[in-house]
Amino acid sequence: MIDLPSGFACHVANIGIKDDTDDLVVITTDRPRPAVGLFTQSRFAGPSVTISRDHLSDSRTQAMVIISKNANVANGAAGTDDAREVLAAVAGRLGCSQTDVIIASTGVIGRRYPMERIRAGLAAIPDRLSEMASESPTSSPSTALDAASGIMTTDTVPKVAESTIGDGPARVLGIAKGVGMIEPDMATLIAVLLTDADIDAETLSPIATDVIDRTFNSISIDTDTSTSDTAAVMTSAAAGSVDPEQFATALFDVARSLARQIAADGEGAETLIEVTVDGGRDTAQAKRVAKSIVNSPLVKTAIHGCDPNWGRVAMAVGKCSDDTDIDPEQVIIRFGATEVYPRLIDEDGLSELAQYLSNDEVLIHVSLGIGDASATVWGCDLTDGYVRINADYTT
Amino acid sequence: MIDLPSGFACHVANIGIKDDTDDLVVITTDRPRPAVGLFTQSRFAGPSVTISRDHLSDSRTQAMVIISKNANVANGAAGTDDAREVLAAVAGRLGCSQTDVIIASTGVIGRRYPMERIRAGLAAIPDRLSEMASESPTSSPSTALDAASGIMTTDTVPKVAESTIGDGPARVLGIAKGVGMIEPDMATLIAVLLTDADIDAETLSPIATDVIDRTFNSISIDTDTSTSDTAAVMTSAAAGSVDPEQFATALFDVARSLARQIAADGEGAETLIEVTVDGGRDTAQAKRVAKSIVNSPLVKTAIHGCDPNWGRVAMAVGKCSDDTDIDPEQVIIRFGATEVYPRLIDEDGLSELAQYLSNDEVLIHVSLGIGDASATVWGCDLTDGYVRINADYTT
Repeated sequence: MIDLPSGFACHVANIGIKDDTDDLVVITTDRPRPAVGLFTQSRFAGPSVTISRDHLSDSRTQAMVIISKNANVANGAAGTDDAREVLAAVAGRLGCSQTDVIIASTGVIGRRYPMERIRAGLAAIPDRLSEMASESPTSSPSTALDAASGIMTTDTVPKVAESTIGDGPARVLGIAKGVGMIEPDMATLIAVLLTDADIDAETLSPIATDVIDRTFNSISIDTDTSTSDTAAVMTSAAAGSVDPEQFATALFDVARSLARQIAADGEGAETLIEVTVDGGRDTAQAKRVAKSIVNSPLVKTAIHGCDPNWGRVAMAVGKCSDDTDIDPEQVIIRFGATEVYPRLIDEDGLSELAQYLSNDEVLIHVSLGIGDASATVWGCDLTDGYVRINADYTT
Repeated sequence: MIDLPSGFACHVANIGIKDDTDDLVVITTDRPRPAVGLFTQSRFAGPSVTISRDHLSDSRTQAMVIISKNANVANGAAGTDDAREVLAAVAGRLGCSQTDVIIASTGVIGRRYPMERIRAGLAAIPDRLSEMASESPTSSPSTALDAASGIMTTDTVPKVAESTIGDGPARVLGIAKGVGMIEPDMATLIAVLLTDADIDAETLSPIATDVIDRTFNSISIDTDTSTSDTAAVMTSAAAGSVDPEQFATALFDVARSLARQIAADGEGAETLIEVTVDGGRDTAQAKRVAKSIVNSPLVKTAIHGCDPNWGRVAMAVGKCSDDTDIDPEQVIIRFGATEVYPRLIDEDGLSELAQYLSNDEVLIHVSLGIGDASATVWGCDLTDGYVRINADYTT
C-alpha cells in the first residue's frame, strides 16, 4: 500500500455521477501551500480549468476536488455556476477559502452535472479532513490507490508512481488518469503530483513546467487534445526542505512513470511505443518529428499488426515538411538497436523486425544528423479496440 | 464508357509489380503541351516526385507513366537510377524526349522496383501510341476507366470524373487513386486531370493551383502525408480554345468529385464526412478548424458508431489553441441542418442525431462567428476495417 506523502489527507467516494464506481476525490493539506497547475490550451476549456487557473494565480492552494465521468464542458454559464457551487461546498467542509480550492473534471462533454447527487456527496466529506492532513501517522480515510482509482474514467488500471527525494524522508507521489483524447497541450488529462517537501513556489514553478513538458506533454494516444487537461503539483512541507535538483529528479521520475503508464493504457492499446529523435536542430524539432511518428495511424497500425513496414516511419519523418533541413540522406532509422534505413534490410531482417514488433514495448530511434538536440515521446498502437471503445462511448 | 478527352491515348497493362492486376499506365498526347504538376511537400519524396517536378519546370509535358503497388521511395541512388531508366524507356517508345515525360508511383516504401519485369512491360507499349493520340475517332488502346483501375493500390473502386467545359466540345476528365496515407500537402496521392481545351500554361497554372487547394488539398483520411502525392493537369488542345472561367468551373467540378470519391473510399471507411466551417477570420483558419474536426479520431469513431457525442466536435474546435480568437460563446455547431450547440439538445434530439449519423454522408457545419471566410473539407469515419487493412499491409 502506498501512503500519501506526509501532510496530505484524501477522501474518495462514489456520489453517483454515472455508475457505482468512485467518482469524487478530495485531496487536502492543512492550509494553503505552494502549488503549481498547468492546464489545457483548448479554446473550449471548461469552468474547471478556467476557475482553477484563476485560483492558482497566487501559486498556492490547500485542496483539490476531482469529479470523474462528467467533464462539465460546453455547458455555458450554468456549468460555471455548478463548478462554483462545488468549490464553495468543498471549501465549507474543509474550513478554507473557496479560492484555495481547485477543481478538475473529466468525462462526457456537454452534459450538466447531476447537482442533487453531488450536493449529497459533498456533504459527506469528513469534517476534520484538513486536520487529518497534519496528523502523523496519517489518519487519511483514503489511500493514494483509492485516489488514483477515483479519478478513472475509461482507464483500465489506476496509475500511481512515487519517488523518494534524495535520501528522504521527503517524497513525491503522483496519480494520473487518461486513456483517450490524449495529446496534451500543456499537461495531460488529470495528473496530481504531491510532495511533502518544503519548497517555495518560485523554485517549484520552473521545475514543474520543465518536468511536465518532458513527460505529460510528450505523450499522445490519439492526437485529440482534451478540454480538461490539468496537471497540479501540491506541497505540504511536512517533511522539511530538500535539495531542488534532487526534487526535480524525483518529480521527473514520478511524472515519467505516470506518462508511460498513460501511454501503455491508451484506449485499446496493446503496445507501448517510445520514440527518440536525436540529431535535431533544436528540441522543438526533435519533438515535432517524434510526435509525427508516434501519432501516425499507419505507424501505429503496422506495429499493432507486427508488420515490418518501416517505410511508414520514413513517411512520418517526411511529412514534417516545414523542416526543410531534414535530408533523407542524413537520416538513420532504427527499431530497438537495429538499423533499418539507410541500410535496406533483407527478408531475414524483415522477419526479425516483425518478431521485435510483437514485444510489449517498441522503441523507434531516429537520428536526423542536423544538430545535437533530442526528445523522447510515448504513445501506443492503434487497434480495433480503440475503434470499438470510441464508437460506442456515450451510447 | 467514358472516353479520354480528344488528343490523348492511353496504354494500360499488368507488368507484374505485385500481382496480376493492372499496374502500368501510360497516358500521352501527340507532342509536348502545357501542363501543371503539384507534388507532396514530404521531405522523403521519392525520385518520381523530384524528377517529375524538374521535368515540369517548363510547364509542358507530353506523357505521364504511372506505376502502382511500389512507391520507389527511400531506395537511395539506386531508386533514382531505376526511375530514370523507366522514363528513358517510355520516351523511347513514344519518340519524345525523356524530359517531356513525368512519372508517378505509389505502393510500398523502401522496396526496389522489379526492374526485369518492368523492362519487359515497357517494351510492350504500342509503337504508335503518340500518333493514336491525335487520331479521331480515338484509337486509344485503353479507356479512362482502364487507366483509373490501373493506378489503384488498395482502392476498392476506380475513381473517374468528367465535365464538359461550358457548352463543349472541350472537356475535363480526371482519374485519381488513394485510400490511405491521405492528408495531401499540395496534391493527393495520384490525380491526373486531362483536358482537350487549348489553354496556355500561364492561364492553367493559377487555376489548377486554386482548384487543387480547394479539392485534393481539402481531404484527409488519416493525417498521414504520402511521400508520393502527385496531381497533374495535362492538355491536348485538340478541342480548341475555351473561356478560362468555364474551364476553371469544369476543372473544379471534376477535382471535387474525385476528392469526394477518395474520401468515401478511405481505407475501411463506411461514411463520407463533409465539414464546412464558416465565420472564420480567413480561409486558412476555417480550413484549419475543419481539418481538426475531420481528422479527430474521436469524431471519426463516434460517427462510425452512430454515437451522438457532439461534444467531440467542440473538443476538436477547441484544440485549435493557436486560434485565440475562437470564443466558445460565439460558436455554433450543427449536424446537417440541426443545431446541437449552444442549444443543448435533449434525449429526443440525441436519438435523432444518432439516426442522422447512420447516413452514408454526414455533414458537420461549424460557424465561428469571427469573420466571413469559409472552407469545406472531406474525410471519412475510422473503423475496425482501417486498423485491419493497415495492420496487415505488407505481410
